[in-house]
Amino acid sequence: MPCSAVLLIDCPDRRGLVARVSSLLYERGANILHADQHRDHELGLFFMRVEWELAPEERGGFDLEAFRSAFAPIAAELGMRWTLTSSAHRPRVALFCSRYLHCVADLLHRWHSGELPCDFSMIISNHHDAEPLAGFYGVPFEYVEATAATREAAETRQLALLEAQRIDLVVLARYMQILSPAFVSRYPAAIINVHHSFLPAFTGARPYHAAHGRGVKLIGATSHYVTAVLDDGPIIEQDVARISHRDQVEDLVARGRDLERIVLARAVRWHLERRILCYGNKTVVFD
Amino acid sequence: MPCSAVLLIDCPDRRGLVARVSSLLYERGANILHADQHRDHELGLFFMRVEWELAPEERGGFDLEAFRSAFAPIAAELGMRWTLTSSAHRPRVALFCSRYLHCVADLLHRWHSGELPCDFSMIISNHHDAEPLAGFYGVPFEYVEATAATREAAETRQLALLEAQRIDLVVLARYMQILSPAFVSRYPAAIINVHHSFLPAFTGARPYHAAHGRGVKLIGATSHYVTAVLDDGPIIEQDVARISHRDQVEDLVARGRDLERIVLARAVRWHLERRILCYGNKTVVFD
Amino acid sequence: MPCSAVLLIDCPDRRGLVARVSSLLYERGANILHADQHRDHELGLFFMRVEWELAPEERGGFDLEAFRSAFAPIAAELGMRWTLTSSAHRPRVALFCSRYLHCVADLLHRWHSGELPCDFSMIISNHHDAEPLAGFYGVPFEYVEATAATREAAETRQLALLEAQRIDLVVLARYMQILSPAFVSRYPAAIINVHHSFLPAFTGARPYHAAHGRGVKLIGATSHYVTAVLDDGPIIEQDVARISHRDQVEDLVARGRDLERIVLARAVRWHLERRILCYGNKTVVFD
Amino acid sequence: MPCSAVLLIDCPDRRGLVARVSSLLYERGANILHADQHRDHELGLFFMRVEWELAPEERGGFDLEAFRSAFAPIAAELGMRWTLTSSAHRPRVALFCSRYLHCVADLLHRWHSGELPCDFSMIISNHHDAEPLAGFYGVPFEYVEATAATREAAETRQLALLEAQRIDLVVLARYMQILSPAFVSRYPAAIINVHHSFLPAFTGARPYHAAHGRGVKLIGATSHYVTAVLDDGPIIEQDVARISHRDQVEDLVARGRDLERIVLARAVRWHLERRILCYGNKTVVFD
Repeated sequence: MPCSAVLLIDCPDRRGLVARVSSLLYERGANILHADQHRDHELGLFFMRVEWELAPEERGGFDLEAFRSAFAPIAAELGMRWTLTSSAHRPRVALFCSRYLHCVADLLHRWHSGELPCDFSMIISNHHDAEPLAGFYGVPFEYVEATAATREAAETRQLALLEAQRIDLVVLARYMQILSPAFVSRYPAAIINVHHSFLPAFTGARPYHAAHGRGVKLIGATSHYVTAVLDDGPIIEQDVARISHRDQVEDLVARGRDLERIVLARAVRWHLERRILCYGNKTVVFD
Repeated sequence: MPCSAVLLIDCPDRRGLVARVSSLLYERGANILHADQHRDHELGLFFMRVEWELAPEERGGFDLEAFRSAFAPIAAELGMRWTLTSSAHRPRVALFCSRYLHCVADLLHRWHSGELPCDFSMIISNHHDAEPLAGFYGVPFEYVEATAATREAAETRQLALLEAQRIDLVVLARYMQILSPAFVSRYPAAIINVHHSFLPAFTGARPYHAAHGRGVKLIGATSHYVTAVLDDGPIIEQDVARISHRDQVEDLVARGRDLERIVLARAVRWHLERRILCYGNKTVVFD
Repeated sequence: MPCSAVLLIDCPDRRGLVARVSSLLYERGANILHADQHRDHELGLFFMRVEWELAPEERGGFDLEAFRSAFAPIAAELGMRWTLTSSAHRPRVALFCSRYLHCVADLLHRWHSGELPCDFSMIISNHHDAEPLAGFYGVPFEYVEATAATREAAETRQLALLEAQRIDLVVLARYMQILSPAFVSRYPAAIINVHHSFLPAFTGARPYHAAHGRGVKLIGATSHYVTAVLDDGPIIEQDVARISHRDQVEDLVARGRDLERIVLARAVRWHLERRILCYGNKTVVFD
Repeated sequence: MPCSAVLLIDCPDRRGLVARVSSLLYERGANILHADQHRDHELGLFFMRVEWELAPEERGGFDLEAFRSAFAPIAAELGMRWTLTSSAHRPRVALFCSRYLHCVADLLHRWHSGELPCDFSMIISNHHDAEPLAGFYGVPFEYVEATAATREAAETRQLALLEAQRIDLVVLARYMQILSPAFVSRYPAAIINVHHSFLPAFTGARPYHAAHGRGVKLIGATSHYVTAVLDDGPIIEQDVARISHRDQVEDLVARGRDLERIVLARAVRWHLERRILCYGNKTVVFD
C-alpha cells in the first residue's frame, strides 16, 4: 500500500469550500485518491475528507509539511477544525478486555493479517484470560486489577500505562468495567466501545437478557465513542441478526458475539483510516 | 389451495404431549401438512401448531367437529389453551388508517392478489384520504372523526361498527390515534399495529426524528399486538434498513415506509395463517 | 422541494478535475447541495455528480444556460461525457407490464405519493390486467398484443407510442416479453428491468424454480439497465431474502415479490434523481 | 450442558410417522428437548429431528442402546434412513487449509471457547502458515505437499492421516486445492467447504474478481458439502454483504472474509449438532 495523506475538515458551511481546498491541493501537485464531502443543511455544517498519494521523495514526493503551513491560515480564516495525517504514522492502540475474548482474538488476528493499520501496543485487562493470546501475537500484557471499588486506583495505573506508551486510541473489547468521566475526558473521540445491543435499546448491563425478556425478533450490537454518559456516545456502526422464539438467552449471546466482533472491527478500522468525524453526538463515516 | 385445519395449543410442558396429539390425529385419519412444536424450558411451557388437510366430503373429508369433541376432554385434562380453525372460515378484518396510505395500499393490493386469506370488511379512518383507494378495491369506507379530545365518542362509534361487521382482526395501518385500554381489552391479541421504529427504541411519537437525533446507523419498524401500554405489546416482526449520515429525517421517513409495509404485511399474514401464539408479552411465530 | 440542477460527468482521470468544476460553480454563485466523486484507479476514470440549488429568478436565480455554455468548452478540453439537467424537467416514463401487477401497483402508489419525480405518461401491456389500476391513477393505458411470434409488429407499435409521448425512460415492471436488440438500441441506459434472481445466478426464465432446484438459502432480485444480451446489462440494485427448506416454489415467488418491488423502485428513483452513471457493463450509483 | 441424544430420520412420507416415533419415545420415558419435522410434499418425503435428554445413570438414565434396538425394526418397516447419536460422542474433525488463515483462526477460537462440540484432531495444510496457530491451540499439524501435479500422492497421504485419526468430518477452511472424486467419495456428506461467492454465481477460481467484473451490488459466501462436481454440492448456508462502486477487488476480498468465517462456522456447528439432512442435492437444516 503506498503512503497517503488524509485531510479531515469540519466547519460552518459556506460557498466555495470545495473549490478552495481542491484548488490548493491541485496547485501543490496532489494526486487525489479519494475525496468525499457532506453537508448538514439543517445545522449548516460542512465535512470533508480528502486522501492523496504521498509518493516517495525520490519520485518528487508531496511535501506534507509545506502543505500544512499553507493550509493553516486558510483553515483559520474559514473557521475549520481539521486534522492532517500521514499513513506513515501508525497509531498506537491499547486494547482493554476482561474475560470474553472473542473481540480481542478477532482484532488481533485482523491486525496480524494486515487488516488494521496500527500498532497494538498493549493489552490491559482486569483478568488473566487474555495473557496467552497476547503472548502469541507478541503484544505486551498488563494486568490491572479493576472493580467498582478499586476504580480510582485502577484508572490511575491505566492512565500511567497509556501515557508511557503514548497511546492514541483505546479500544474496549468487551471490557466489563465502567470508565469514569475523568478518564474518558483524557481521550475525547479516542475510546471506542462495543455494546451488545442495538442502541439506544437496552443500555446498561445484561442487554441480551433484556432483549430476550422483551421478545424482540432481531438482536444488535453497536460500536461507539465513549463519552461521560454510559452507552450514550456517538454511534459509529451497528448491525443486527435475526432471532426467533427458539433462541434462549445463551443463543442470543452466541449470535451476538459475531455481531460484536464485526461492528467493533469496522469501527476500529474506520477510525484508523481516519474516516470518522464526530459532531454533536453523531458521526459522519466517510466510506 | 385445498382447505385445511389448524390446531394451536399452549400448555404446561410434560412428557408425551406430541405423542398424544399426533396419535389422535393419526387415528382420525388426518393427513398432516405441517407440524411444529416449541418448548420454553425456562418457563416450562409447550406450544404446538398442526395443520392438516380437510378433504372435501365426497372424498371422505375429515370430520372437524367430531375431532373437536374428541380433543376437548384431552385438552382439559392437560391444561391446554387451544384453538381449532378451518381455512374455510375467512377472518373479517378492519383496517384503521389516517393520512399515510402506504400500508393500506400495500395490504389492499396483497389482498386483491390473493396473498391474504381474509375479508377486508371495512376501512375506518379519521381522514378522507383513503376513501378513493377503498372504493377502488371495493371495501366499505367509514369516516369516524377522532382526535385526542373526541376519543371516547370515536371509540364508541368504532366499536359499534366493528361489532356490526363481526370483525375478527383490527389492523392499525399507520393509524395516528392512540386507542384506550378499554377499546384494546375488547380485542385481545386481535389488534395489530405497526410502529415506525425498532422497538423498544424510540417508543411514542416521531420515532424517525428521535432516530435521526440519536445518530443511529440502522432504522427499523416493528409490528406488534396492541396492549393497554403504548408500543409495549408482544412483538410479531421487526426489520431494519441501513442509513448513513447523508440521510435526513425525510430520507428516514421514506426508507422506513418500505420497512413498515413489510413488517405489517408479514404480521397480518402470519396472524391469518394462525402461526402466532402469544404468551407473557412475547410471541411464538411458527414458520 | 426547491428546484435544483444536477451535473453528471465521466472522463479520463487527471489531476485538478474537482478544482476545475468546483471553482467554476463557485464563480457562478452556485449553492451546492450535494457533491460526490469517484475514481476508478484501475481504469483511470473519473466520475462526478454535483447538485446545486436553482433559486427562483426573483431571488437572483442561477443561470443554468449560461453555465452550460461556460462549461461546454471545459468539458470538451477534458474529454468529458456529461449531462446537465434541472429538476424542473420531469422525465416522462412508460411502464411496461404483463399479468403480475405488484411492481406496477407499487410504482404507481409511490408516484402518487410524490416519491418519484417524473410523469408516468403511459402504461403499455400485452394483457388487460393493469387497465383498472391505470385508470385509478389516471395513467393512459395502451394494450399492445405481444408474443414471441408477433414481436416485430408489437415493437413497431410500442416504439411509435413511446415516440409520440416523447418518453425518456422505459420501466419493465415484470414485463414478460423479451425486447429485441433493435428496440433496446433506441433507449440506451434508459430501459430498466427487474429480474427475479440474484444475477448472474439464474438468468432466463423461471428463476425461482431454478433457485428452488439448486437449494439456495437466499433468494434475490436485481434491477438493471437492459442491453442487447438478456439479463446481462449493468446492475443498478440487488437485494436478497433468507429462505429455508420449508419454502416451496410458491413461497419463493411470494417472498420474491417484495424484493422485486423494492429493487425496481430504488432503481427508478435513482435514475430519476440522476444518481446513476454507466461505464463498461457496470454502474456508479451516487448516494 | 447435559448430555442428549439426537435421532435424525428421512423416509417416504406416510400418515402416522410422528405418532409412531413420539409414542415410542414417550413409552421409553424420553424427556424431549427439541423436535422438528419437515415434509417435502412435492417429493413425498418426511424428515425429522428429535433431541432428548440423556440423564446420568444414577438418575435413571435413558437407555440409548435399548432404544436403538427397539427402533431398528420400526425404521426398517417404514423405509427410514436414520442415525442416532449421543452428544457424549464428540466428532473428530480435521481442518484443511492453505495460506489464508481467517477461517482457521476463527474456527479454532470458537472451538477453544466451547462453541463447537467436537475435537479438532488435526490440521492438514500444503503450506506452513497455519503451524503457529495450530501450536497455540494445541492441534497436531501435518504438512502435506499438494499441488495439481502431486494430487494423487497428496491425497493418499491425507487419507492415511484421516484414517489413522479416525476423522468424522473434514472442513476445508479456504483449502486451495481441488479434491478428487475418489477422495470425496470416502467422506459422503462429511466434507464441508466454504466458497467465496453466492453460489451458483461465480463458481470456480477467483470469484471476487468475477463479481467485481460483473458489477454486482452484493457479494456472498456459501458453505456446502463437497461432492464430485466442483462447487455443486448441497448448500448449507449462505450470506451476503452490500458493496458499492467504491469497492475494489481487494475490498471485496476483505469484506468477504467476514462472510466466509460466518457461513463456514455456522455450517460446522450445525453439522456437529446434527441439524442437517441431505437429500438430492439439497439440505434440510433444522433450527
